[in-house]
Amino acid sequence: MLYTYNMIHDDLDDAIFRALGHRTRRQLLDDLKAGPLTTGVLCELHPELDRCTVMQHLAVLTDADLVIPERKGRERWNHLNIIPIQQIHERWIGAFARYTADKVGHLEQSLAATPRLLSKAHSE
Amino acid sequence: MLYTYNMIHDDLDDAIFRALGHRTRRQLLDDLKAGPLTTGVLCELHPELDRCTVMQHLAVLTDADLVIPERKGRERWNHLNIIPIQQIHERWIGAFARYTADKVGHLEQSLAATPRLLSKAHSE
Repeated sequence: MLYTYNMIHDDLDDAIFRALGHRTRRQLLDDLKAGPLTTGVLCELHPELDRCTVMQHLAVLTDADLVIPERKGRERWNHLNIIPIQQIHERWIGAFARYTADKVGHLEQSLAATPRLLSKAHSE
Repeated sequence: MLYTYNMIHDDLDDAIFRALGHRTRRQLLDDLKAGPLTTGVLCELHPELDRCTVMQHLAVLTDADLVIPERKGRERWNHLNIIPIQQIHERWIGAFARYTADKVGHLEQSLAATPRLLSKAHSE
């Protein structure tokens, strides 16, 4: 059961890193940082790409849950979804930060256990 | 000049996302979250992989600057480097957080510009 759960997560992570692995797709996410844009505007921002290529890249980003599309009439608005990026950060840096916090905690305990040394250092 | 600068950065980012794109390499980074480990210990943690495969994955992670190796005698200690992961976060969420902060700032300004409405709401 856990194996299946991990496999689903690994598949999602594969999709996320595959999507982020292409510089054009990273640029498209950069474009969406300041707010959602229509597919038309994204095409105008990338005259070097044809509309079909932009739409293919957006499909990969959408499959990886990095872009959330919103239909408004005939327009498609593309929203940056920061949750998967937040999860990358949490996976490695969240734990690292806790590890660092533990280290500092242990250091503080060690210092607290040597009050004479501390007060001597402070008086110097 | 800027183009060259961006190209170098794009190459580095390609290496980072390629490295993170493999589930075994993500697992190796998970193993290093709690602190550095020797290559020997990493091999023991992954009996399903032969030593050569582990070393190849570590080489990809090292090229992407996600792992920093440290030689101590005959041992190689592998350290997780969080800087590239921090930069992924900063690239998209840093800006997003600033955008959200701006939005809140504008909202506060709008609210400050309507004191009568606010005091009316507070008195109710």
